[in-house]
Amino acid sequence: MAKGLRAVNIGLDDFLSPFRKGGVPCADIDWKPPAQGDSELIDILFNLAVGFRNADGDSLIDIANHTGLRRILAAQPVVRRVRPARELIPDFAENVILHAGPPVKWENMCGPMRGAIVGAVLYEGLAPSEAEAERLLHSGSIACQSNYTLNVVAPMAGAVSRSMPLFLVENETAGNIAYSPLNEGVGHALRFGENHPPVLARLKWLEEVLAPALDRALVGLGGVALKPIMSQALLMGDEMHQRNVAASLAFYRSVATELVDAAESADDLKSIVSFLARENEQFFLNLAMAAAKTAMDTARIIPHSTLITAMNRNGVDFGMHLSATGDRWFTAPSLYPKGLYFPGYTETDANPDMGDSAIVECYGIGGMALGAVPSVTHLVGAGNLMESLEYTVDMNHICIGRDPDLAIPNCDFAGAPTGIDVCRVVATGILPLIISGVAHHKPGVGQVGTGLVTPPMEVMNKALRAFYQTVAG
Amino acid sequence: MAKGLRAVNIGLDDFLSPFRKGGVPCADIDWKPPAQGDSELIDILFNLAVGFRNADGDSLIDIANHTGLRRILAAQPVVRRVRPARELIPDFAENVILHAGPPVKWENMCGPMRGAIVGAVLYEGLAPSEAEAERLLHSGSIACQSNYTLNVVAPMAGAVSRSMPLFLVENETAGNIAYSPLNEGVGHALRFGENHPPVLARLKWLEEVLAPALDRALVGLGGVALKPIMSQALLMGDEMHQRNVAASLAFYRSVATELVDAAESADDLKSIVSFLARENEQFFLNLAMAAAKTAMDTARIIPHSTLITAMNRNGVDFGMHLSATGDRWFTAPSLYPKGLYFPGYTETDANPDMGDSAIVECYGIGGMALGAVPSVTHLVGAGNLMESLEYTVDMNHICIGRDPDLAIPNCDFAGAPTGIDVCRVVATGILPLIISGVAHHKPGVGQVGTGLVTPPMEVMNKALRAFYQTVAG
Repeated sequence: MAKGLRAVNIGLDDFLSPFRKGGVPCADIDWKPPAQGDSELIDILFNLAVGFRNADGDSLIDIANHTGLRRILAAQPVVRRVRPARELIPDFAENVILHAGPPVKWENMCGPMRGAIVGAVLYEGLAPSEAEAERLLHSGSIACQSNYTLNVVAPMAGAVSRSMPLFLVENETAGNIAYSPLNEGVGHALRFGENHPPVLARLKWLEEVLAPALDRALVGLGGVALKPIMSQALLMGDEMHQRNVAASLAFYRSVATELVDAAESADDLKSIVSFLARENEQFFLNLAMAAAKTAMDTARIIPHSTLITAMNRNGVDFGMHLSATGDRWFTAPSLYPKGLYFPGYTETDANPDMGDSAIVECYGIGGMALGAVPSVTHLVGAGNLMESLEYTVDMNHICIGRDPDLAIPNCDFAGAPTGIDVCRVVATGILPLIISGVAHHKPGVGQVGTGLVTPPMEVMNKALRAFYQTVAG
Repeated sequence: MAKGLRAVNIGLDDFLSPFRKGGVPCADIDWKPPAQGDSELIDILFNLAVGFRNADGDSLIDIANHTGLRRILAAQPVVRRVRPARELIPDFAENVILHAGPPVKWENMCGPMRGAIVGAVLYEGLAPSEAEAERLLHSGSIACQSNYTLNVVAPMAGAVSRSMPLFLVENETAGNIAYSPLNEGVGHALRFGENHPPVLARLKWLEEVLAPALDRALVGLGGVALKPIMSQALLMGDEMHQRNVAASLAFYRSVATELVDAAESADDLKSIVSFLARENEQFFLNLAMAAAKTAMDTARIIPHSTLITAMNRNGVDFGMHLSATGDRWFTAPSLYPKGLYFPGYTETDANPDMGDSAIVECYGIGGMALGAVPSVTHLVGAGNLMESLEYTVDMNHICIGRDPDLAIPNCDFAGAPTGIDVCRVVATGILPLIISGVAHHKPGVGQVGTGLVTPPMEVMNKALRAFYQTVAG
């Protein structure tokens, strides 16, 4: 080698290896080509960036996206009622069980979702045994339907049946509503695919003891506003997907006094207080999900908007909605979370990512707000301050705004990144971060860990191409 | 001026002004002489650093300080009971009212402390009117005595009387105990010098409704461990002096279920739940203080130890204990907090800093743990992340250890700075940071703000000189 030769590389660092072997000093610049170097996507992004202007020369896409963002930021979700699903949703047919994520047939469902669906069938008394439940599901006598068809969001397997109590959350600003079931708590749970008797017994307790009391308390209060709770919880180390300690306590304290009269007996009250104040630190998750859905739904179906209005997973596929393309699902295989496994479990036990819960990331919390919570990055990564800040810096690259009412103290009170723009995701290659529980891939085993996951890049590319076809005609 | 002249200055930047005026480029190095440039103090620090060795050549001071630190870190404070002061403390004489800070006579007390003492006299029924209470206090028929004489800590004016319920906190490790009254909550409060009927009525409610129920709940539980609550609260944005939102909720949830049976009626239960879960976000402060005292008392009276074992203020003087010198108070005039004033008030309304609450800073929380809480520095300063981290970096310079069980997420889970060494304070000129409420200087007005304050440097110098006389004498 010539004396004094030095090499600088941009992009794939493999190119440097012959130089390194030859002892040449090498500098490596971390760079990725835009849009994964895909010339079709680059063309689309270019055309979208320069075209689609109004008479004043303003970008129709920017205008549409900021219309969506304004509506998202203006949302004031309030939880008003807790009532059985069959009462809130007249369209909920008697032989239907709902599931998380984009539509998927029983035959194609992953193990934990099958376990949860069977559990819901047993809970409803639609079958006397697991085997009979599976037979009815296989024959189609009992049908499975995506939560989104009935305006419901539910975490993990997301199995929802007619007798289950649902939160009714109303966005006071726009008047739209969304539903979510009550969070069952940690440990053995239907949402992780478990369906043995103690799991079903807890669901019955939710239905018969907690829900009626909570409903009376909420009616007495005229509802509880959820955004102030989310604001406060972000100051207290929750990102409201993996960690809901502060938000759950803050919600409980909102109804604590009213529950004294709302509970039917002192024993009921004690079990309710124990559950809400002590046992279930994830209780707020389902409220955050329904709240986020009421906000995100106001940004649905805005022509020219490239905002991502829903993200979910059925344990096989990841599903996504774009604003402009309305209820059309874009899907691609769901990825495996990377993170922390419970003792005795490894990545080989994991099911691909699952649940409607990524609606909170659409809204700017969860993985989007990791800058607020070094204690959560601690679970899923190095867990130092800089790492948690870097996550949120990255998320700002793919969002069109920040929510000043979701201030992150560690970002000097800048708002959480909100309004994920699929163009920015494809252009930068930065994918939204989602914090997720990990279910065992077999039905009936339950939760095996917690981790960080992203949508598959393919779903973003598909959505962008479809959007372009729509607007370019 | 000669061409090319440049000036570098170390220390007081006044020296540079003639050069600046003459257009000379100046560099200013931020430097302070050690020990305020006081040659006597420098000699003492030098002698302490090189002398006082055992046969192995190890520093007796280091050994003593680390003995103290180990005991402080090992403390496991548990709140066991809530009982009337007269029952817990047989030495509490019938004509005595306790006050915060180092001993001070009625004649020399500041306005808000007088207001609080009069309130306590009225609450006890020792006088029928303010005027009569003042007459009895002036004549000495009613005597004032420092909380520390009876092993009590209380915030702000710290007025404690015989009928008031006190927490009994036991350090399970060493078996020692400390007491604190129940926190009254925000708004009008005796501790800020107010004594009108609603303030006294709330004190009666604490005595008659809350305390008996809380005592029954605690007895049923066998006590509630306080350190796990403090650990958790540090992860949730509390530093446990100015902000106790998470800690108060975490304490409440520890007793929430037991309170259902412990309260005498549904109405009592509702008022208790409202108070603990909703109204009083500072409830945990007094528990943190008693817990800190049980930890710090284990480091009392260790020969050769230069650890600061107590800091308090009576609104006139700041008081301090060093380990080696036991119960001897070192005092100097208390300073004025700098911070945020409530609308309509300014620094001219403030009383000098007051209360026993700085015991929490001795223990490593409060102002010592500001790195955990940008949302608190927001109240008292620029409130950005770097500022909050700098505070804790500074505090590490004057502490001999960190408490791994009081991990600060923003410091990558390093423990809170613990074990303030008076030698380090005098040598560096860095004073412990104390977060404090600000009382109006007139009796009866109440709280006017919240701020950050330090001990007067003079008290540190006095304590160091006295320590040196003790060990060298």
